Amino acid sequence: MLQNVCILGATGSIGQSTLKVLAEHPEQYAVFAVTGFSRLDVLVQICQQYQPKFVVVPKALQDQLHQACFEHKITQTEILTDNAGLEYVASHPDVDVVMAAIVGSAGLLPTLAAVRAGKRVLLANKEALVMSGDLMMQSARQSQALLLPVDSEHNAIFQCLPESYCVQPNIEHFGISQLLLTASGGPFLNMGRQELAAVTPAQACKHPNWSMGQKISVDSATLMNKGLELIEACHLFAVPEHLIKVVIHPQSIIHSMVQYIDGSTLAQMGNPDMCTPIAHALAWPKRIATTVPALDLFTQHRLDFQEPDHFSFPSLNLARMAMKAGGVMPTVLNAANEVAVDAFLSKRITFTAIPEIVESALSRIEYSPAMSIEHILAIDAQARQIASQDVSQKGR
Amino acid sequence: MLQNVCILGATGSIGQSTLKVLAEHPEQYAVFAVTGFSRLDVLVQICQQYQPKFVVVPKALQDQLHQACFEHKITQTEILTDNAGLEYVASHPDVDVVMAAIVGSAGLLPTLAAVRAGKRVLLANKEALVMSGDLMMQSARQSQALLLPVDSEHNAIFQCLPESYCVQPNIEHFGISQLLLTASGGPFLNMGRQELAAVTPAQACKHPNWSMGQKISVDSATLMNKGLELIEACHLFAVPEHLIKVVIHPQSIIHSMVQYIDGSTLAQMGNPDMCTPIAHALAWPKRIATTVPALDLFTQHRLDFQEPDHFSFPSLNLARMAMKAGGVMPTVLNAANEVAVDAFLSKRITFTAIPEIVESALSRIEYSPAMSIEHILAIDAQARQIASQDVSQKGR
Repeated sequence: MLQNVCILGATGSIGQSTLKVLAEHPEQYAVFAVTGFSRLDVLVQICQQYQPKFVVVPKALQDQLHQACFEHKITQTEILTDNAGLEYVASHPDVDVVMAAIVGSAGLLPTLAAVRAGKRVLLANKEALVMSGDLMMQSARQSQALLLPVDSEHNAIFQCLPESYCVQPNIEHFGISQLLLTASGGPFLNMGRQELAAVTPAQACKHPNWSMGQKISVDSATLMNKGLELIEACHLFAVPEHLIKVVIHPQSIIHSMVQYIDGSTLAQMGNPDMCTPIAHALAWPKRIATTVPALDLFTQHRLDFQEPDHFSFPSLNLARMAMKAGGVMPTVLNAANEVAVDAFLSKRITFTAIPEIVESALSRIEYSPAMSIEHILAIDAQARQIASQDVSQKGR
Repeated sequence: MLQNVCILGATGSIGQSTLKVLAEHPEQYAVFAVTGFSRLDVLVQICQQYQPKFVVVPKALQDQLHQACFEHKITQTEILTDNAGLEYVASHPDVDVVMAAIVGSAGLLPTLAAVRAGKRVLLANKEALVMSGDLMMQSARQSQALLLPVDSEHNAIFQCLPESYCVQPNIEHFGISQLLLTASGGPFLNMGRQELAAVTPAQACKHPNWSMGQKISVDSATLMNKGLELIEACHLFAVPEHLIKVVIHPQSIIHSMVQYIDGSTLAQMGNPDMCTPIAHALAWPKRIATTVPALDLFTQHRLDFQEPDHFSFPSLNLARMAMKAGGVMPTVLNAANEVAVDAFLSKRITFTAIPEIVESALSRIEYSPAMSIEHILAIDAQARQIASQDVSQKGR
């Protein structure tokens, strides 16, 4: 049966990989709606190739996209705008699968709309879950949405869990002792603090193994990406943070692991290509083929492991603390981090100032429970304001 | 509910590990019957500690065991003998689980008896499946016996397959592209043919990672163990031999892998301790705890992989050829190998003569389908005779 897919964030790296996987299985999946924030040329190309029913862009781009569609004789696609448009397509009754791949907190509301509508939600937007954790998981249970992780690490953990784990997420019941979240260590692995203070955005965006967007590349370089993933994993798999261990594994071949009480460790491995977790989450519990070549351990030869350096990369432990504190603290962490990364990318602060800004925001906003999306969004705004002030003070 | 366990081969390495696991879960498992071939002192000790209902020994040892039991005031255990005794306890109506851990072809008939009686059979005796492959799998389907692999490699593959795979073993249906069988490479990894000709039984029995019996240690050194495992895997998982690849992995941390069409590779890892696969097969689909420490990748540091050297270690390809030929050829392979290993252990032939004797037997017995156990046993005897003649000719 043909499944209708809505891709939130179709022009980004994950969006493009998703389209690639879908194009290989036209008999199983149709592109029903796509959304994009800026790259109109890419959106027009998608509309030509996949003929979606809807395309969603910011209001400011509506006329320009309209004109472009007219010029390219695209007639079957309706243009919608802003959050209303995003939420409309994410929860549209004809949609079966929603790929939530909008980067950062902007993805929260449409992702939540898809979850509330009970869709199969492929979660690539980790910030949405970091911000709204319990609320989103609760919504998923109520609507019976199927929340499937696309982040390579969480997808790996999901693959290493028993099939029925998502129905009854309970580590004790399934004899699980620990989750091992692997981290490449990013481009600055083994650098000391002093060296780190001088790194540039261009260096930070050059990830050794994965080709990704700018924000996630910087997060990967600070290890905050692993911190956000740790929080995401706590929610997705109902596991307390102390049962999640981070392992630096520079080759990014093992994408994460699950340890069991009988001494077994299950690992999911593969070449670093997001098409694999995307295809897995699309087809689960079945499998569909991708063009990702099978892992060849004879060319890989060896896999290495080491402990994270918490002194040079304090972001990971900041995330752990925020998760342990709970409530709105992960929201504060995420918001301050987004502001700090943005400031680093535009060369207003140094690389090592990123965790300082996050730590400062965490210390200046008090704990409160994450009661409602409104409250979460208010805290998000407050944390951004505090972080922005910090940026100005540190700015050169 | 208390499960009654029968351990075929209780005094061996696997049998001892099984008893250790059972002793940690007395509320779940009771030792109902044990069998042993020679070590009476160990059997007496088992009877004292676990109070089984039955103990089975060779007829020649019956009186001696009787006397020992009398001296140790063991009154609750009945002594049975020979194959009749083995088959009686393996198929006893009160038995829930049979650990099939008799080494070599001697395990065939009792294992088959357990399978035919529809038990949960934990298969550690790979030779039984190599000899009787299709017949045993067919019996298991008919009796609805649950055949669970205890060999660490097959247990690893089983853990990396979907839970429902054993109900419907079909690689295409589950999107599986390949099985990767890992091999430590044994104590002689990276040695050339000339060096190998001079190795002693004592050297061959010193396995770098596992503490095992003599026969399997030598098989591990020649790579015939991996060949037998390849045949075992073909039967257990209904996979043709060309979809099983052998990967040398000297650390024995990854115990085997499954590759899927979406680019995923699932691996089961752990410290090399048979208690893990035994506990897994006992409790599956649940898990029970063992005392095996969780894998610590920070102390492990690195994992290496390389291709097997088929020139110096021809046994693996002999097994592959035998499996490809099918019918009784794996029986011939196994029988000739048992004779050759025995001759090597008693210093009648060199290490490099082992595969020569196996190859010679394979070339001198013609293919026939494996129609019945009687036919298989006749071919087994014929292969042993041919191999014994070869040994005499090569003998010094």
